Amino acid sequence: MGELVVVALGGNAISPAGGTGSAPEQTRNLWASMEQVADLVAEGMDLVLTHGNGPQVGAILIKNEMARDVVPAVPLDWCVANTQATIGFVATTALSHHLRERGIARPVVPLVSRVRVDVDDPALTAPTKPVGPWFSEDEADTRRATDGHVYGPQGERGWRRLVPSPHPRESLDLDAIRLLRDHGAIVIANGGGGIPMVERDGRLEGIEAVIDKDLAAALLAHELEADGLSILTDVEGVAIGFGTADQDWLREVDLATMRAAADRGEFRAGSMGPKVDAACRFVAAGGTRATIGSLDRAGEVVRGRAGTTIVAGDPDA
Amino acid sequence: MGELVVVALGGNAISPAGGTGSAPEQTRNLWASMEQVADLVAEGMDLVLTHGNGPQVGAILIKNEMARDVVPAVPLDWCVANTQATIGFVATTALSHHLRERGIARPVVPLVSRVRVDVDDPALTAPTKPVGPWFSEDEADTRRATDGHVYGPQGERGWRRLVPSPHPRESLDLDAIRLLRDHGAIVIANGGGGIPMVERDGRLEGIEAVIDKDLAAALLAHELEADGLSILTDVEGVAIGFGTADQDWLREVDLATMRAAADRGEFRAGSMGPKVDAACRFVAAGGTRATIGSLDRAGEVVRGRAGTTIVAGDPDA
Repeated sequence: MGELVVVALGGNAISPAGGTGSAPEQTRNLWASMEQVADLVAEGMDLVLTHGNGPQVGAILIKNEMARDVVPAVPLDWCVANTQATIGFVATTALSHHLRERGIARPVVPLVSRVRVDVDDPALTAPTKPVGPWFSEDEADTRRATDGHVYGPQGERGWRRLVPSPHPRESLDLDAIRLLRDHGAIVIANGGGGIPMVERDGRLEGIEAVIDKDLAAALLAHELEADGLSILTDVEGVAIGFGTADQDWLREVDLATMRAAADRGEFRAGSMGPKVDAACRFVAAGGTRATIGSLDRAGEVVRGRAGTTIVAGDPDA
Repeated sequence: MGELVVVALGGNAISPAGGTGSAPEQTRNLWASMEQVADLVAEGMDLVLTHGNGPQVGAILIKNEMARDVVPAVPLDWCVANTQATIGFVATTALSHHLRERGIARPVVPLVSRVRVDVDDPALTAPTKPVGPWFSEDEADTRRATDGHVYGPQGERGWRRLVPSPHPRESLDLDAIRLLRDHGAIVIANGGGGIPMVERDGRLEGIEAVIDKDLAAALLAHELEADGLSILTDVEGVAIGFGTADQDWLREVDLATMRAAADRGEFRAGSMGPKVDAACRFVAAGGTRATIGSLDRAGEVVRGRAGTTIVAGDPDA
């Protein structure tokens, strides 16, 4: 096999903000993305795929809310599992098809996969990530009294539920991922950051939380001793002064420079910030390179020919 | 390994009719079932698991319906995938735990798995299986005009959507199932009958249909050349004259006798009928034995010590 790269597709790239979010639309986007992934595999790259699920979980939470007097709402761990299966089977069908067209018969396997977080992760008692529908302040108060969830103001559109975003510690289905990879399968794993689990009294249980999908991808890349991590999103790369007159796209940057930029607050929380953090963590833990770039140019980004590449040392030294 | 048995758990047994259908309730039921499964594994039985999802898909369809003006409804293939993931990861967590308690470290892998049906299966143009919420006749007419779905009267509670229930032809993820099994994993596959797919113009695509989970289990058992198929449900076995004064539980029956009883109309369509059909098909195709019985006595039923056992020849000959 060629070098191993863990490739993370953004949930927004599968179900873009301007779209309808329908199953046919997500299916079309996945078929297009998987064509690029198939080209990479055909070139001899060894890939493990993962994906985000923000819009998809959002849709399930809205359904939960609107039907809550008739059928029980499902918790967030179940929502994440839901999206792993739907994105997983559609991506598998598309990638298998594109691979067969290229004469490649490797199985593609979408794994329902769990990720352990620390039971005493401080994030678990301080929810910060907004999810699901918007409410007025009064509605949020009523909800809090009923369901015990945490709600917080989110700008002009109103209040939203806030959930914990704990740090991923261990991919619980790593044995299956390794076994499948060792026998030629292309695995899709840790989708949506993985199903969040804690160990309590010697038992694993799912929890109401959402793990950042880029951090879960970085963890998986580290666990698999991958050469590279590629985070594919809807912008062409990482920029200094993003959205300003002085915007400057970064092509190749060493870890220290990138971290200094992050510390200066160059990258937005909940957007480019966590992607840069995940990329830096992977390189700091020994990864050869991390790339961040546009899903439209997935092939070039994964190969390090487009987007932003982060490496350990000074590349010009 | 010991003899291979494909074990099918009923969706109603995971989420019983009298229950709330909540995630904690389904989780408790799965932890209890998986303890019995763990005992079978500890005894040396080689198992592949599958499960139904009727109540779980029903809940998603109600959410689809209630939120349909806000977020797009997901099609039935996506609903099936959803339930494979949730039931799959909870069952995996429970079974892994119970196995570890018995000193067994085998990985358990819940596969998002697809099943192909014939694109010209007559069932696809003649929907018969009722799913989702109930409507009045007027509401059903309005729905039909809007979504193009088929609706039919279902007794006093009103009308329901009718969907095709095509015959399963091929487990599309069999390579992955075999690979995992060959390396010691316990696989959960073809849940909810498998994600229904057809091949059209050389491409596989998901369709709006539901495959009978017992038929999909029988297919998988045949494909894997299993010795046994066990269908676990909420009654103690198969009875002649079920619910009458002459009710007679069957213990061990040969194929010809069971088929004759089915032909006489002894077993209800949509209930015991398809289970008996699936069991008979498996034995007719060369399986050693099929058992049908209560999930509460899973261990004994799988071993053929409780419930009803169907074998090829006359057991008393």
